Amino acid sequence: MDDRWGAMFRPDVLVPPLASGPLDGKTFAAKDNIDVAGYVTGAGNPDWLRTHKTASRHAEVVALLLEAGATLTGKTHTDELMYSLNGENVHYGTPVNPRAPGHVPGGSSSGSAVAVAAGLTDFALGTDTGGSIRVPSSYCGIYGIRPTHGRVSMDGVVKLAPSFCTVGWMARTATDLALVGDILFKANPGRGGMEAKRFTRCIVPVDILHLAEPSVLDPFLEALARLQSDFDVIRFETVAPEGLAVWKWAFRVLQGREIWKTHGAWIEAVHPTFGPGIAERFAWTRKLTEEEERLARRLRASAIRRLKALLDENTVLFMPTAPGGAPKVGLDTATLEGWRSKLMQFTCIAGLGGLPEITIPSMVVDGLPVGFSVIAARDQDERMLKWVVKWSERLVLSHPPTGREGGRTN
Amino acid sequence: MDDRWGAMFRPDVLVPPLASGPLDGKTFAAKDNIDVAGYVTGAGNPDWLRTHKTASRHAEVVALLLEAGATLTGKTHTDELMYSLNGENVHYGTPVNPRAPGHVPGGSSSGSAVAVAAGLTDFALGTDTGGSIRVPSSYCGIYGIRPTHGRVSMDGVVKLAPSFCTVGWMARTATDLALVGDILFKANPGRGGMEAKRFTRCIVPVDILHLAEPSVLDPFLEALARLQSDFDVIRFETVAPEGLAVWKWAFRVLQGREIWKTHGAWIEAVHPTFGPGIAERFAWTRKLTEEEERLARRLRASAIRRLKALLDENTVLFMPTAPGGAPKVGLDTATLEGWRSKLMQFTCIAGLGGLPEITIPSMVVDGLPVGFSVIAARDQDERMLKWVVKWSERLVLSHPPTGREGGRTN
Repeated sequence: MDDRWGAMFRPDVLVPPLASGPLDGKTFAAKDNIDVAGYVTGAGNPDWLRTHKTASRHAEVVALLLEAGATLTGKTHTDELMYSLNGENVHYGTPVNPRAPGHVPGGSSSGSAVAVAAGLTDFALGTDTGGSIRVPSSYCGIYGIRPTHGRVSMDGVVKLAPSFCTVGWMARTATDLALVGDILFKANPGRGGMEAKRFTRCIVPVDILHLAEPSVLDPFLEALARLQSDFDVIRFETVAPEGLAVWKWAFRVLQGREIWKTHGAWIEAVHPTFGPGIAERFAWTRKLTEEEERLARRLRASAIRRLKALLDENTVLFMPTAPGGAPKVGLDTATLEGWRSKLMQFTCIAGLGGLPEITIPSMVVDGLPVGFSVIAARDQDERMLKWVVKWSERLVLSHPPTGREGGRTN
Repeated sequence: MDDRWGAMFRPDVLVPPLASGPLDGKTFAAKDNIDVAGYVTGAGNPDWLRTHKTASRHAEVVALLLEAGATLTGKTHTDELMYSLNGENVHYGTPVNPRAPGHVPGGSSSGSAVAVAAGLTDFALGTDTGGSIRVPSSYCGIYGIRPTHGRVSMDGVVKLAPSFCTVGWMARTATDLALVGDILFKANPGRGGMEAKRFTRCIVPVDILHLAEPSVLDPFLEALARLQSDFDVIRFETVAPEGLAVWKWAFRVLQGREIWKTHGAWIEAVHPTFGPGIAERFAWTRKLTEEEERLARRLRASAIRRLKALLDENTVLFMPTAPGGAPKVGLDTATLEGWRSKLMQFTCIAGLGGLPEITIPSMVVDGLPVGFSVIAARDQDERMLKWVVKWSERLVLSHPPTGREGGRTN
């Protein structure tokens, strides 16, 4: 495999299909927090790799895909313990964003996004706790889905914060994205059952538009304009009555408390070496208090109520996936933290609500890809995928080439 | 007195107690718009000093404190005619902010805040029309109270805009803040009488949070989290249906009209020399029209109705006292005006409502102190002070040293 993009942690992995099925002939890669039998799962950190054993079985999602005919052709890089949205791993390097060389690929599913964007595999598995599929998909100009929380099995996957973690996937085309959904959602049918009905109402979050880079607004509204004929109602609404910054705080605190519960014991036992930013972040999760968790729980309950009121089964929410295109590689920690703080106000909506979100490679802003996101009520995943297959072609505002020639030049 | 901080306009003033009482052994300073018998009150402007006579009696508040056992040890600097929130006096210099050297102390009670923060006196008297106690207290990391409008006597005090002006005080500890309240509020009992009852509900103003510097949010919510167990209800609400910028406009117009009525005749007779920003501001008050005043009155009435609906006797409002820490010394007028315009959206809430507000030195943001404010319904002053004594220790998120070593380095 020609991995000059640095997407792969283990390019040598090659697992043939376990059976023939709808994914015959398709190749995929899995983020290195997802077990593949016979390999140690590394989770982006050498100390984790060193202190864990070889996986004896495939993660459930890997098995399902292999049984459906797909071939696994590599394990991809992740940010350390999946706790970043950036894609710069101090131990293993930064995968090259094929659509924007010189800019980060986004994370934590950095290698999976790059593998797909560069055409190394047809699709790739990732995980998304606070944006780890949506953000790199947006930055790298590909499709990505974070399913309804709980819809796709996390068996055999290293978690970050269980009440937010999801397994999802990325693809270059809407049809491939939907094809994988056919397999994985069928394994755990939701309470949707509305696939045949169209979405009739859409909501545009005013508070998100305020936060987006000004140059995102024109292409976003251009994309929205192309969709309006399919909706009876388009409403511009403030999503977060408490403010998205407050929602983000609640998300970060709850995520942080769960992270420490999940990984604190290992960190205290092993004293792993973490890169800049990551070490501070883990130290911060350790200091969070019960009082903060209680206030954050209150706020999450309020956010869930609000999102339920906004999003009934016939309503979708449209927004830019991120405030803008990918930041440059090698920015200082303070600048990156500022960006992250803004970015998480975008990603915390689906995160707090446990809602499905699909990002479509629709916009190009200042030469960089920016995703167009669709969020819907819980368990509307299959219906959303159908919608994306039908409409996404219309949403792609430019069709830049993939590979080296792409990215900054278009 | 070692006044290397430049807090004192008259460090030579020394008035012993008039009797023994609860303030025995305590020292205090008074802002130089508060009369001390035997001295000319200067109000921060040399032309005012030159054209006014020696005070024959103490201001009522000064007399009350001296009778309670306190010793007056100086008169402190103020912005010119108390018409600024900055603390840079072109005639007399800028007192040094002991907690943030290189940053302004805030005004107009600049010298009083610095005297307390530097430990020159136990407490200090100031006045607050549009934030002149709250802002320097927040910037200098000390406690400050603006009482219910009308609760504390303004006799013997140079006013700015009477329907907003209050006499208040600052201290390094909550107990000293409350001790002074015991004396001054007892002299004019309010209709409170609820001191024994706890506050059961709290409101967090979403519109204020939007205006605050992003880095204020985390420490503010951390502080809020520490208080939640004491409240039955926490509500995030938009305080100003018309927008805080509109409330601020109403405040400034009404204040401006009153200022011209109060000081216009003197200004036209004396043609005093004012520093940059101040001269323009007085000229602006002169041009304000009756129509503007009428609209502003309408808006004030609406703001008062709204605040009454939000704040019943068992409810408090929590917010950061200012959008962030103290601006640097010597910023250009345009930048300062921009900051002032934001800042007054914070201070106009208690200002328009005539409400009591106490600022607690709770947060340190980017190395600079930022106050945590409590606002309550009219006449709840004593109850608020009791609350602050009980809870403020829990609210102090860091305990940086005072004095030269403090400030930017922690």
